[in-house]
Amino acid sequence: MTAISTAYQQSTVQPPTSLPFDERQAPAVRLYPLSNYTFGTKEGQPEEDPSVKERLRRLEEHYEQHGMRRTCEAVLVCHEHNHPHVLMLQIANAFFKLPGDYIPHSSDEIEGFKARLNERLAPPPTSSLSTRDTPAEADWNVTDTLAVWWRPNFETFMYPYLPAHVTRPKECKKLYLIQLPKSKVLSVPKNMKLLAVPLFELYDNTQRYGPQLSGIPHYLSRYRWEFV
Amino acid sequence: MTAISTAYQQSTVQPPTSLPFDERQAPAVRLYPLSNYTFGTKEGQPEEDPSVKERLRRLEEHYEQHGMRRTCEAVLVCHEHNHPHVLMLQIANAFFKLPGDYIPHSSDEIEGFKARLNERLAPPPTSSLSTRDTPAEADWNVTDTLAVWWRPNFETFMYPYLPAHVTRPKECKKLYLIQLPKSKVLSVPKNMKLLAVPLFELYDNTQRYGPQLSGIPHYLSRYRWEFV
Ligand SMILES: [Zn+2]
Ligand SMILES: [Zn+2]
Ligand SMILES: [Zn+2]
Ligand SMILES: [Zn+2]
Repeated sequence: MTAISTAYQQSTVQPPTSLPFDERQAPAVRLYPLSNYTFGTKEGQPEEDPSVKERLRRLEEHYEQHGMRRTCEAVLVCHEHNHPHVLMLQIANAFFKLPGDYIPHSSDEIEGFKARLNERLAPPPTSSLSTRDTPAEADWNVTDTLAVWWRPNFETFMYPYLPAHVTRPKECKKLYLIQLPKSKVLSVPKNMKLLAVPLFELYDNTQRYGPQLSGIPHYLSRYRWEFV
Repeated sequence: MTAISTAYQQSTVQPPTSLPFDERQAPAVRLYPLSNYTFGTKEGQPEEDPSVKERLRRLEEHYEQHGMRRTCEAVLVCHEHNHPHVLMLQIANAFFKLPGDYIPHSSDEIEGFKARLNERLAPPPTSSLSTRDTPAEADWNVTDTLAVWWRPNFETFMYPYLPAHVTRPKECKKLYLIQLPKSKVLSVPKNMKLLAVPLFELYDNTQRYGPQLSGIPHYLSRYRWEFV
């Protein structure tokens, strides 16, 4: 926030107004300030796999038993200074990830996804925060699929398309826009931090955030925001 | 296309089938092979501005008279070998651009966009190809907004978001998915080539295609394709 009042930030000469330019777009999405949300902590949630090698081995096992793995991740958006920020988990002061995870092979996509988000971010039943949200606030409003990434082999590479001639992908990961309610309680595992990262920090920053997270400004660009 | 028949490309052991994974996605988009389209040529269309400096000066003039410039570009998708390809214009064997352009300040968004696409790619009335398409084939099926880019200043930089504290953008550029009909005649100005560029060529290739075109695989990743 700047200390200069908005009246002094702009010249008083208004440019002419352009005609509407919002065809073939989704309805505007309302964003609330970060300060609307309440952040608690809860027990740590260590990584399921001690190494990338282990994770890929487990993916192979899953594939043999159940077929392609389905992974769901949430893009939760709020604002600071009228600029969209994405909520991201930082693990051990090092790498970043979105809330979400692979879903059990027998689960329905959306129900399984919500269960994973609650595991990660809902206040535990023992917490004094657990009764603060209304049922609507406690729920997750899964709005749109933003992106789909494919893992063609039991390797770390994923692509935002199914590569040519790949007929048996090993994992499919979907990123969804989740519309946050006006207020909500989020409880963060002790070994993680939940950070609000502005779009301008993610954009063109594959080195720090990797190709999936640095793609988020692209995925969100088609939305019109309503900052309240 | 590979010479090996598909029966020999895959092991015969089928993995188990995963549960559905298509929630919160648009209906599948049908893609036709590139060979379904007829390409003609027409008179050259030289660049309106001799230099980037000239273009920015003209943008400034437009802004003073009419406000923010509105620019529309088309992502036209077909397939080869069941992999999506995007139709792109290459100018003077050098840089690439999508069909489309800024629209006149007094034009409706979609009507103005279609007029620009016809200017660029419709067969001229004098051509023998001009009567080949049905009215539906000759039309442009503007489906969804894929991305919105903003130019905050009279400079070359654009961003897939409105940068913080920018209240008077100078240009807004929208990329739309246009669904191609089963067949269509496209006439290309003599000084340009129309190329079908596969997603895997665009992806992670900002150096060759720039940030907007190399973002296309991201924008399209949420669609399910039906290759026919
Ligand atoms: Zn600020
Ligand atoms: Zn399983
Ligand atoms: Zn091929
Ligand atoms: Zn004008």
